[in-house]
Amino acid sequence: MAEVKAIEWANGKLRLLDQTKLPVEQTPLELDHYKEVVKAIAEMRVRGAPAIGVAAAYAVAMSARDVQAESHREFLAQLAELGDEIASARPTAVNITWAVQRMIDAAESEPDLDLIRTRLLAEAQRIQEEDVEINRRMGKYGVELMPDGGAVLTHCNTGALATAGYGTALGVIRAGWETGKRFHVFNTETRPFLQGARLTSWELVQLGIPSTLIVDSSAGLLMRRGEVSCAIVGADRIAANGDVANKIGTYSLAVIARENGIPFYVAAPTSTVDLSIPSGNEIPIEERQAEEVTRFGGAQTAPEGIDVRNPAFDITPHQYITAIVTEKGVVREPYTESLPETVKGMQVES
Amino acid sequence: MAEVKAIEWANGKLRLLDQTKLPVEQTPLELDHYKEVVKAIAEMRVRGAPAIGVAAAYAVAMSARDVQAESHREFLAQLAELGDEIASARPTAVNITWAVQRMIDAAESEPDLDLIRTRLLAEAQRIQEEDVEINRRMGKYGVELMPDGGAVLTHCNTGALATAGYGTALGVIRAGWETGKRFHVFNTETRPFLQGARLTSWELVQLGIPSTLIVDSSAGLLMRRGEVSCAIVGADRIAANGDVANKIGTYSLAVIARENGIPFYVAAPTSTVDLSIPSGNEIPIEERQAEEVTRFGGAQTAPEGIDVRNPAFDITPHQYITAIVTEKGVVREPYTESLPETVKGMQVES
Repeated sequence: MAEVKAIEWANGKLRLLDQTKLPVEQTPLELDHYKEVVKAIAEMRVRGAPAIGVAAAYAVAMSARDVQAESHREFLAQLAELGDEIASARPTAVNITWAVQRMIDAAESEPDLDLIRTRLLAEAQRIQEEDVEINRRMGKYGVELMPDGGAVLTHCNTGALATAGYGTALGVIRAGWETGKRFHVFNTETRPFLQGARLTSWELVQLGIPSTLIVDSSAGLLMRRGEVSCAIVGADRIAANGDVANKIGTYSLAVIARENGIPFYVAAPTSTVDLSIPSGNEIPIEERQAEEVTRFGGAQTAPEGIDVRNPAFDITPHQYITAIVTEKGVVREPYTESLPETVKGMQVES
Repeated sequence: MAEVKAIEWANGKLRLLDQTKLPVEQTPLELDHYKEVVKAIAEMRVRGAPAIGVAAAYAVAMSARDVQAESHREFLAQLAELGDEIASARPTAVNITWAVQRMIDAAESEPDLDLIRTRLLAEAQRIQEEDVEINRRMGKYGVELMPDGGAVLTHCNTGALATAGYGTALGVIRAGWETGKRFHVFNTETRPFLQGARLTSWELVQLGIPSTLIVDSSAGLLMRRGEVSCAIVGADRIAANGDVANKIGTYSLAVIARENGIPFYVAAPTSTVDLSIPSGNEIPIEERQAEEVTRFGGAQTAPEGIDVRNPAFDITPHQYITAIVTEKGVVREPYTESLPETVKGMQVES
């Protein structure tokens, strides 16, 4: 099977697989200005916290073309402004802020104005390559959590499309399958944007992992009937206490999992952890436009003019989360201790 | 405001508002053979447990036109067979079985073969009229449960469209509003068939009750944030112990409500209570076709050929249900005692 490439750098352009068109069309977008990348992130043509981090890093490298500076200091000032613009494309995921900051740091470390743009591009490429490697390591650590027999429930899309490759939660599922464990996957469609139906179902078919698509609200019935062995999802931001911001619906799944004694796992790179915020209460929740709920594929699904609330994420308090899989090991309660240790680079036991 | 008429009998035909076309089109179907009614029920052109009970009653009356019998006994035997066919249009809701049985009983009580068809039509009309009256009585009893201020969460459609008129859970909401209580309504879109987005939103607009449409999985976030005062839903069948079969997703909402200390109410006529089954484990769950999940309005939402599970209902165990509103009063735990008493006709305290 050919590996899915959601993001590629080629001939000075950023090529993105337009994820709003999948699974019906596989249309690549070729972007040659950073503003186009910002637009693609905001319109969710590229989505998934790690993937938007990588796309944002390339956007910073591309934005450096617009910088006209006489001094390193001036360059950095202009780049910081462009970085803020790029980071604000979507508010909830911390990876975008993390990636932009890393690019700014790279620019700071290269004082030669003739070399700085090359250095920035190299840094974006390094972030991309590292992301694939990080996902594979998460997969390695997460394998022990996957069942042999039974079924794994997942939500939204956390696969190769959501990352630079391989995936976070779907990477752990894939790693489990690749080590010979056998299980079924239930994946939710994930309203309103249908990342599960459109993207995860498509990736699971490509990977040859047997799966069944369900509407979000069917997960409760399956969990109560004993048909789900464990659940695993990704994260857009993790607070210092282990509270997890992730796709809307995650909180409900976690509550129902605990009610039924089913382990609930999160897989996310340490770049998703935001130690600067003590709890999930401080994570901003993006509210998206009503049309995602009231229309689909050109069809109207609700009366015209009705009031809609469309929060894209929710917060799952840490007490519902059995373990967090990172590229440095599997982290468990008390998260206030285990998360800072892990983020600061100490390898935890897997 | 004109009252919504989902079901009307006129000129020997059954006129149904085609609910698969709402809210975009208000198209009435005119049916003159019982098989068309069975098809309309199976295709969910008419839906909602009480409404399909009424439609099934008319179908039995219409099917009597096809009976060719020399004796009352022969008539009853043929009608019973037709009744079985009609009752099997949808398996989960008990109201359809209840309505068919009531029609058979009516036929039994009229030995004159010349009068029996008129008697059947009169019985169907009585069932329809009684349903509206029952809903109004449920509303009266349920008013005390509605908040003054705050917000009520509801799921699926339980309004005039789901019944012969007025509604069950939405009837209680409406009754609360009509007595002058002021609150907001959050209504879920209710995947996969979108009864909430298409029908409940439409009814709430007609009623002038302020409401906000959300995807099913947003309810958890709102409940956790303290934005929901109580939840109220309908039921398709209630077991003797108070376990409730209702639209898929109800179980999840009930679990999250309890987790957040939010009262969770069910509104259903006593014809929904099936004392013959001790618990929800014995209620058959209808599995519907994959296309409801993988397509919408002609648009493809998932890869071709993917495996889908599409259970239309789930079971909410009685311990999650704060109270059940019936036309005979508000029933609470222990349901094993309160439900049989109520069904058998004793008025409980409201």
